[in-house]
Amino acid sequence: MDFTDYPSGAPGHVPGAPIRAGIPEHGRIPKYYAVKNQVAALLDELGEGGLLPTERELALRFTVARETVRQALRELLLEGRLRRAGRGTVVAGPKLEQPLALASYTEGVRRQGRRPGRTLVGLDRFPCPPALAPDVGVEPGAPVWHMERVLLADDERVGVESTYVAVARVPHLNTEFPPDSSFYGYLRDSLGIGFGDADERLETVLATPREALLIGTPPALPMLLIHRLSRDTEGRPLERVRSLYRGDRFSFTTHLGSKR
Amino acid sequence: MDFTDYPSGAPGHVPGAPIRAGIPEHGRIPKYYAVKNQVAALLDELGEGGLLPTERELALRFTVARETVRQALRELLLEGRLRRAGRGTVVAGPKLEQPLALASYTEGVRRQGRRPGRTLVGLDRFPCPPALAPDVGVEPGAPVWHMERVLLADDERVGVESTYVAVARVPHLNTEFPPDSSFYGYLRDSLGIGFGDADERLETVLATPREALLIGTPPALPMLLIHRLSRDTEGRPLERVRSLYRGDRFSFTTHLGSKR
Repeated sequence: MDFTDYPSGAPGHVPGAPIRAGIPEHGRIPKYYAVKNQVAALLDELGEGGLLPTERELALRFTVARETVRQALRELLLEGRLRRAGRGTVVAGPKLEQPLALASYTEGVRRQGRRPGRTLVGLDRFPCPPALAPDVGVEPGAPVWHMERVLLADDERVGVESTYVAVARVPHLNTEFPPDSSFYGYLRDSLGIGFGDADERLETVLATPREALLIGTPPALPMLLIHRLSRDTEGRPLERVRSLYRGDRFSFTTHLGSKR
Repeated sequence: MDFTDYPSGAPGHVPGAPIRAGIPEHGRIPKYYAVKNQVAALLDELGEGGLLPTERELALRFTVARETVRQALRELLLEGRLRRAGRGTVVAGPKLEQPLALASYTEGVRRQGRRPGRTLVGLDRFPCPPALAPDVGVEPGAPVWHMERVLLADDERVGVESTYVAVARVPHLNTEFPPDSSFYGYLRDSLGIGFGDADERLETVLATPREALLIGTPPALPMLLIHRLSRDTEGRPLERVRSLYRGDRFSFTTHLGSKR
């Protein structure tokens, strides 16, 4: 399945690309956007991993101000077309494609031939607030865990995940569970709790300064946020999860209808 | 199902909210972010539709520079917490929640008690490029339609949609189809073509200047982009669709697993 979104700077009419991209109805293209299209075309020539010329060189090449080049590069960085590498800027690879139907981040990353990983940021235990209680299947005030982990793919930080689960369900989370491994794997193998089903809501948000710092992204990078409420195989409430993925590195795939 | 993301400025520990939001590990909160949290708390007091004080008034109230207030308001606008109304800025309502499993935009918007609509931007007919041919089930060079429509909910512009379909499948699209109605409804009722299934990819992108103009959003607003490749009930390729939704107005819901 090829979902390639063609660079909007490519010549002629390309399917799937924004049509007449960047040409407002009154026919005027903002200068930075014209430069963005020119740089996008250059990225295709350079190929993945190729080193971009400096801002100064690009400003000379396109005879525009450095500030104009900077605005164009900023958008290409936010969109994941470029990435910083050491002191330079290189052409980024395609976004990861995570199947939404897969409950497990670990499994999704593996299927793409990448190595999944997780780094523990914090594990807290606190009395369950009333709003959270039905989601984790306890009475208000009963103890719940909050586990926060940075998500990795081949050691690259790609997201941050907050899991809320009742202490009664997972009493030894703080001592037994290796935080760099799959939580669903632990539930299944050590506690005999199977993931049953989940409701999710997906939206785009801006990273908070703290989240940007944790993930190592530019501030105000658009992120994909997934809220999940999951139940075990018996239909009992299991956990509430807030997963934030870098918008420049992740996409999600899904299938509608019964046939495949 | 309550997926409420609590305002990050709310006091205490709220489930689902970014934990210690905005507090980087070194403990320093950027000034604009502190103001953003203060304004977010104010939005809760004002309630949906409430009129926000002016930038000048907010700058005086929080004793910060107007530029600092402007940065905070810019993020709240991009996130859909605020919206422009005439010359003022008001508290926005919650994001629309569109079920991803629903093929039809029309049906999804109706279920939320809003009135769906569409405005035709353009309808072109062109020889099918090789890359598009398998997606619409024709030989390269055969004629295809490209239909571009702005998506409306209660007359509010919320997205823009590009549909590619073979002229051989829908010969009279330009004369028979009312462009403000449901395309799947037309296929079914007038041509006996049923929607079968589809593969989709969802990502976040920035609006191009032209798209921002069409939808009436600030430039560089984060958008949710859905690529769709769909087939009819017989499994034959039907259409390729590129749908762009305002990131500040839309979220998508989905269900994982077999139980509901």
